[in-house]
Amino acid sequence: MHMMKLVSRVSTLLLSVTPALAIWPAPTSITTGNQTLWIEHNVQVTYNGGIVRWSSLSHPSCPSAAIRTNEELLALQLPWYGGFVPPGSDFRSQDIVHGGVCRALDAILNQNFVPWKLYARNAVKQTEPAANKGKTLITKLEISQTGKDNSSTWKPVGGSVDESYSLSVDLKGTAKIEAVSAVGVLRALESFVQLFYQHTNRQIYTTLAPVEIKDAPQFPHRGILLDVARNYYPVENILSILDGMAWNKLNRLHIHVTDSQAWPLQIPAMPEVSEKGAYAPHAVYTPHDVALIQTYAVHRGIEVIFEIDMPGHIGIVAESHPDIITGWGAEPWTTYCAEPPCGQFRLNETKVDTFLDTLMDDLLPRVSPYSAYFHTGGDEFNFQEYLLDPSVGTNDTTILIPLLQKFTDKNHARVRKAGLVPLVWEEIPKDYNITIEKDVVVQSWLGGSAVQELTSAGHQVIDSNYNFWYLDCGRGQFLNFENGQPFDTYYPFNDWCGPTKSWQLIYQHDPRANLTEEQAKLVLGGEVAVWSETIDETNVDSLIWPRASAAGEVLWSGRLDASGNNRSAVEAAPRLADIRERMVARGIGAAPVHMTFCTQGRNGSTCSWPVGV
Amino acid sequence: MHMMKLVSRVSTLLLSVTPALAIWPAPTSITTGNQTLWIEHNVQVTYNGGIVRWSSLSHPSCPSAAIRTNEELLALQLPWYGGFVPPGSDFRSQDIVHGGVCRALDAILNQNFVPWKLYARNAVKQTEPAANKGKTLITKLEISQTGKDNSSTWKPVGGSVDESYSLSVDLKGTAKIEAVSAVGVLRALESFVQLFYQHTNRQIYTTLAPVEIKDAPQFPHRGILLDVARNYYPVENILSILDGMAWNKLNRLHIHVTDSQAWPLQIPAMPEVSEKGAYAPHAVYTPHDVALIQTYAVHRGIEVIFEIDMPGHIGIVAESHPDIITGWGAEPWTTYCAEPPCGQFRLNETKVDTFLDTLMDDLLPRVSPYSAYFHTGGDEFNFQEYLLDPSVGTNDTTILIPLLQKFTDKNHARVRKAGLVPLVWEEIPKDYNITIEKDVVVQSWLGGSAVQELTSAGHQVIDSNYNFWYLDCGRGQFLNFENGQPFDTYYPFNDWCGPTKSWQLIYQHDPRANLTEEQAKLVLGGEVAVWSETIDETNVDSLIWPRASAAGEVLWSGRLDASGNNRSAVEAAPRLADIRERMVARGIGAAPVHMTFCTQGRNGSTCSWPVGV
Repeated sequence: MHMMKLVSRVSTLLLSVTPALAIWPAPTSITTGNQTLWIEHNVQVTYNGGIVRWSSLSHPSCPSAAIRTNEELLALQLPWYGGFVPPGSDFRSQDIVHGGVCRALDAILNQNFVPWKLYARNAVKQTEPAANKGKTLITKLEISQTGKDNSSTWKPVGGSVDESYSLSVDLKGTAKIEAVSAVGVLRALESFVQLFYQHTNRQIYTTLAPVEIKDAPQFPHRGILLDVARNYYPVENILSILDGMAWNKLNRLHIHVTDSQAWPLQIPAMPEVSEKGAYAPHAVYTPHDVALIQTYAVHRGIEVIFEIDMPGHIGIVAESHPDIITGWGAEPWTTYCAEPPCGQFRLNETKVDTFLDTLMDDLLPRVSPYSAYFHTGGDEFNFQEYLLDPSVGTNDTTILIPLLQKFTDKNHARVRKAGLVPLVWEEIPKDYNITIEKDVVVQSWLGGSAVQELTSAGHQVIDSNYNFWYLDCGRGQFLNFENGQPFDTYYPFNDWCGPTKSWQLIYQHDPRANLTEEQAKLVLGGEVAVWSETIDETNVDSLIWPRASAAGEVLWSGRLDASGNNRSAVEAAPRLADIRERMVARGIGAAPVHMTFCTQGRNGSTCSWPVGV
Repeated sequence: MHMMKLVSRVSTLLLSVTPALAIWPAPTSITTGNQTLWIEHNVQVTYNGGIVRWSSLSHPSCPSAAIRTNEELLALQLPWYGGFVPPGSDFRSQDIVHGGVCRALDAILNQNFVPWKLYARNAVKQTEPAANKGKTLITKLEISQTGKDNSSTWKPVGGSVDESYSLSVDLKGTAKIEAVSAVGVLRALESFVQLFYQHTNRQIYTTLAPVEIKDAPQFPHRGILLDVARNYYPVENILSILDGMAWNKLNRLHIHVTDSQAWPLQIPAMPEVSEKGAYAPHAVYTPHDVALIQTYAVHRGIEVIFEIDMPGHIGIVAESHPDIITGWGAEPWTTYCAEPPCGQFRLNETKVDTFLDTLMDDLLPRVSPYSAYFHTGGDEFNFQEYLLDPSVGTNDTTILIPLLQKFTDKNHARVRKAGLVPLVWEEIPKDYNITIEKDVVVQSWLGGSAVQELTSAGHQVIDSNYNFWYLDCGRGQFLNFENGQPFDTYYPFNDWCGPTKSWQLIYQHDPRANLTEEQAKLVLGGEVAVWSETIDETNVDSLIWPRASAAGEVLWSGRLDASGNNRSAVEAAPRLADIRERMVARGIGAAPVHMTFCTQGRNGSTCSWPVGV
C-alpha cells in the first residue's frame, strides 16, 4: 500500500509547471512578470533617438533573414546586411544596428514557432494567452547606444569590445535596449527575440512582461572551430553557422582553412596552391568569399579567425610546391603523422620562407580589416617526418627544436607586421618548449592540467579541451580496417576521443576549473571544435547544435551561477530545448535535446535521473 | 636513406586507381567492361514486350520522384506511385513496374551527380569519358518478368517473394532486366541506376559496359526499425526513409508506433487514445497516413510492419483509459520501468481485453492488405510495476508469468484472426519463458548468445543485436542529471549502449555468426534500429544513412563473399561512399563516409590503417 504514495500522475505534474524563462544563454540578471504583450509589423524602432530606416518587412531595405546565398547577398549590395565591404572600409554602427533590427523583427514576426513542444501535452491552447481580449501592443523599441564604436568593436582583441546590454519591456508596450557598443545592441536584440512565440492564431506574443534584463558575458572569446579543409563547406553553410552563433551570442568563428588533405583557400599571388590543392575547382574560397564571410560575421558581432596550421598539417602544398614539403604521403603514415596523408614544411629550406612571405603578404591584408587574430597552428609536429627532409635529415630534437623556434618567430613576425595577434596550439610552448611572446594566445586542446600549466606560465589561453568540447568525437574511426591484423587489433574501431560529448558533458565543463584567480584571468574563453573527418554540410548542423549552445552558455553566463553554484542541467534543459526549437524555426536543423515527452515536461525534472537512485 | 623507400607519392597513388564497381549492396555476381554508353530521355522501356506507358519525364504520368509530401501525392491520385489504395485493392504488377521505371529514369537523368569526390583530386575531366566522340546510346531497356505476382509478392512472409533478378547492358545499347517478380524488377532497376553518372557537360553515362549482373538476397528480412512514438516523424519523412530503403534494397520498415511517451496512431474506434496520447493534435498518423505509408512502401517492394509494444511501454494509454494501466508515471521510475514515464497494461483486468479487442479490430484490417506481420512487442516487462496494479498487486513471478502467458496468447489470437503473423521481442520466449507458436517470429536485441539460443529452440529470428545495429547508441544520455549525487554517479553521462556503432562495426556483424547450418536457416534477417530519445526529423537522415546501407549489404549480399571470406571494409568503403553521394543527389542527407581525401582515393586503402602497424 505504501507503494502507492510513490505514484505521481504525470498529467498532473505536467499541467502544473510554470513556463521556464526562455533566454539562452542565461542573462546575468533577469526579472519577468506574467503579463501578455503582442507585437506586430508596425513596431517603431529608434536608435539614439532617430527612427531606424524601417518601414515594413517587405521593404527592400529590410530583406528576409533567410536570404543567405552568396548570389542573393551579392544581389542585395547592402553592406549592413553582410554584403561585400571592400577591405579598409569602415563599418558604421547604424548599419550594424539596422541589420540586427531587421533580422530580429524578421525572426520574431516571420520565423517564429508555436511552442507546442514546450508546453504540456495538448496544453498549448490552455497555456497561450487569450487572443480575443483587449491587446496591449509593443509599439516602440528604443535603442540607445552610450559608447562610440571603433575598429576594436568589430575586430576585438580579447575583451576589447563591451558586449553588455540592458533590455526592458514595460507594461505599456515600450521596449528599451541600452548598450555601450553596437555589438551589445546585437546581443540585446537576440535576447529580445527569445521573449516571443507564435500564437496558434499566428499572432506573436510574450507572456513575460514586464521584463528587466541586465547582461554581460563572462568570457570575451566564445567560439566554434570549423575544419573546412578535410571536407569543404559551401559558403552558405558557413554563413548559416554564423547565424546560429549570433543567436547563441557566440562571437568567434575559427576557420581551420587548410590541412594536409586539402587547400581550399585561393591565394591570388599563388593560384597554383588551391588549383592543385583544393578537392575540386569549385571547392574553394575565393577572396570574395573570404571577405563575404568576414563581413557577414562582423555584422553579427562575430570575429572570424583564420588558421593556416603549420609546420605540420600542410602536406597538400606538395602538390604545387613539392620542394618545400617533407614526407608528402609517407607510409606507413602512422610513423610520420597523426592521420593520412603526411606532409610538413621542410625545416631548413629557404624556399619555405619565400612561400610564406608570399602567402602572408597576400592573405593577411585581407584578414586584418575584419579580425585582430591569425592562427598559425603548430599542433602534432612529427619529428620522424624530418628523417625524410633533405634540408635536415634527422629526428634529433636538439637540431629540430631550434629550427622550429626560428620558424615560429619568423611566422609570428609576419603576423604582427600585418597588425594581427598570433594564435598557436598548445604544443608550441608546452611540448616543444618554443619561446613565444606574451601577446600570443595559446589554444589548449589536450586537457588534463594543460590550461593550468599554460596560465601559470603566463600565457593567455583559449580552452578547447578535447575531452569535453570536441564535437566530432565518439562517432567511430574514419579509417578502414582490413580483415586480419589491423581489424582484430583495433576492433571495435573506436576513434581516439570517445565517448561522444553529450550536451550535458559539454555543459559541465568549466574552462576556469582548478585555476587560481590570477590564472583564471588569463583564460579568454573557449571554442568547441568541428573536425571534419566524418562531417560535412549534410550533418554539420545537428552535430554543432544544440551542443555548441551548451558551451555557449558556459562561456557567456559562466559555469557557475550568481551564487557560485554549478549551473544545473535540470534547470538548463527546458531552456536549451526552447532555443533548439527556435533555431529549427529560424532555419538551422539543430538536433533535439531529447524526446518531446521530456520537453513537454518543461521543468527539466520530467526526464531526470531520480535523486538518491 | 632506407627510409626514403617508404615514401609513396599520394598523387601518383591516386591517379593510378581503377574505379571500383559502383553497385551497393554487392550483387551475387557481376562482370563489367570498360566501354562507355550514354543514356537520354528517349530510351524506350518495354515490360514483357509491351511499351511501358512512358513518353517523357515531363509527362504527368511520370512525375518527379522528388514529389513526396502527403498533399502532393494525394493530388496525383496515382496508385502506382504511392497514392492511396483502399484496403483490399489489388496491386497490379504493371503499376509497380511503371512506378519503378519512372523513378529509376528520373534518378538517372535528373537526380544524378558528377562524381568528383570519387575520382582523384581534380581528375574528373581526365577520368570521365570524352563526350565529343561518336556516342553509343542506350536505346532500349527490356524488362521481362518470368513469374506471376500474387498477394505474397506484396506482403511476403519470410522469403515468399522472389527478389532475384538479372541485369545486362550490351555494347549496342540494349539493357535487359529479367526477374521472377515485380519486386525483383524494382531491385534490378536500383542496380541499373547505380551504373550511371553525370558528366561535367551534364550528359549521363556509364563506363562499365558491357554489364552482366545476377543477383539475389541472402536474407529475406532486411529492415529498419523506426520509433515514431518518442518523437513524431512527419509522414513525408517516413516516405523519404522508404525511398532510401528502396535504393539500398532494404525491404522491411518496422514502425514502433506507440510507446509510453506518446500514442500518435489514430484509432477511429477509440479516437480518445490519440486525442489524449499524441504529443499534439497534428502529430498523429491518420488512417489515410497509414494507408499512404503502406502503399508507398509496397510500390517500392517494402513491407511495413507495425508494432504496438505491450504489455510494457504503453503507459500513455492511461491518459484516455486510466483503468487499464498500472503505474502510470510511477516514481522513482528507475524502479518501475526502463525509462520515464512508466506504465504497463494491468495484467488481470478484463477491460484490457475490451480495449485490445477494439484496437485490433480497428487496426489490423487496415494492416493486413499490405503486410503479413504484426509486432506485439513484449520487451522490458517490469515485475515491480505490478505491485501497483490493483488487479494483481504483486511482483511474484509465479503469479505474473501465467498471466503474461494468457495475455500473449490472446493477443496472438487476435493477430492470427486478422491473417497476420505475430512478431515479439526476445524476452517473451527467452526471459519470461512464455510459450509461443512456431509461426511467431522473434526479434532479438540483447546480443550475446541470444540468436543461438532462440534458433536452437526452433524459433525464427530477426537479429537487431544492440551491440552492432542500434543506430541511436553511443551519443550520450537523454536524461538530465542534477548536480550532486546522480551527477557524480553517472558522470560522464554515457548512454547504456555505447560506443556509437560506426559503419565499420555495423558492417562486420553477421546475423548467422556461430550458428549451425540448421540454426542459420531460422535467421530471417535483421533490422537496424532507430530509437528516438534524441532523434527526430532534423537528424534522422544522417543517423540512418549510410550506416543502414552497411547493414543492408550484410543482409542482401551476406557478411561472407562468394569465397566464404569476410567482406573487407577496405573494398567496401569506396562503394559505400559512392551510394552515399548518390543518396545525397537523390535528396537524402546521408552523412559522409569519411573526408573527401579518402573518397578521392577511391580504392579504399588510402584511408586504411596500415597492415602490420
